Amino acid sequence: MKVLVETSARHLHVTQQDLETLFGAGYKLTERKSLSQPGQFASNEKVTVVGPRGQLNMTILGPTRKETQVEVSLSDARALGVTAPVRESGDIKGSAPCKLVGPKGEVELAEGVIAAKRHIHATTADAQKMGLTNGQVVSVRVDTAERSLVFGDVVVRVSDSYALAMHIDTDESNAAAAAGEVYGEIVK
Amino acid sequence: MKVLVETSARHLHVTQQDLETLFGAGYKLTERKSLSQPGQFASNEKVTVVGPRGQLNMTILGPTRKETQVEVSLSDARALGVTAPVRESGDIKGSAPCKLVGPKGEVELAEGVIAAKRHIHATTADAQKMGLTNGQVVSVRVDTAERSLVFGDVVVRVSDSYALAMHIDTDESNAAAAAGEVYGEIVK
Repeated sequence: MKVLVETSARHLHVTQQDLETLFGAGYKLTERKSLSQPGQFASNEKVTVVGPRGQLNMTILGPTRKETQVEVSLSDARALGVTAPVRESGDIKGSAPCKLVGPKGEVELAEGVIAAKRHIHATTADAQKMGLTNGQVVSVRVDTAERSLVFGDVVVRVSDSYALAMHIDTDESNAAAAAGEVYGEIVK
Repeated sequence: MKVLVETSARHLHVTQQDLETLFGAGYKLTERKSLSQPGQFASNEKVTVVGPRGQLNMTILGPTRKETQVEVSLSDARALGVTAPVRESGDIKGSAPCKLVGPKGEVELAEGVIAAKRHIHATTADAQKMGLTNGQVVSVRVDTAERSLVFGDVVVRVSDSYALAMHIDTDESNAAAAAGEVYGEIVK
């Protein structure tokens, strides 16, 4: 059972309200390129994420969401000077704080900075075909020339709004020396 | 077969000649703390490593060596703007260039920036006890709360000047969410 392995670089999701604070009243995200998950896109809008130790520029992914969330690698978290917990997307309670700086304003986030838990997006049909269920935890073997490894603790997330793909962060991608189009083998 | 897994943050090794260019004629490294490998130490001396995109401060590890070598994670390499090959220590031919900036001078390295290939240091006695041989490639399972994984492509290096330990870089450590004292299980 092969799955495309995609690397998510640091990025953030924002509420419409925070977007307007950062970019001005009535501002709308503009699409730069579509992502593999249907309806999701990288915008042209970037903000500076500021932590106690450093700052990093990040692209906002669209569309806007109900909560603002900053997804970083643990390397990024160290550069920012924050302790980002490993969490599934949306699970931001008690996660790290930061400040967002946009061209028109700033947002102080009391929480919202996480390192994404590695996961597989699958449609109901994909999941049935592969014998996977929502919330199941699997391992995925990634064979590369110099840093092959098997990722454990990969959460399967099933929704018909998804497209089949595994998402890892840049640390995880680098740990596998993954470059170009990479596929993993699901090991239950 | 358990092995202590140690994370190596970015650092560099320098020749005595480069050390003197960076810190002044006749300069000697001063020890800040000893490392697990016998005779090796983190010095008090730091330099700025400059790439085409960015720069990072790094500690020099001592004692001085026959060749200057900068060891970075692939995240670091991206921040610097260089393409660091995954290599065993000492194998720097054709690796990435950079500039070193010290308090007294600069060194332009035509090559020397690598991402260290993950490896296990073992004494002859360790290796015999574990049934390992120099140059053997093994896998190592690291179980953590949220990011367990199995590192493949781990090279065993045997020398009586070593102490038993596995070395991974910060990306690899982050990919396992390894924190505190971590042990791995060697899987041949």
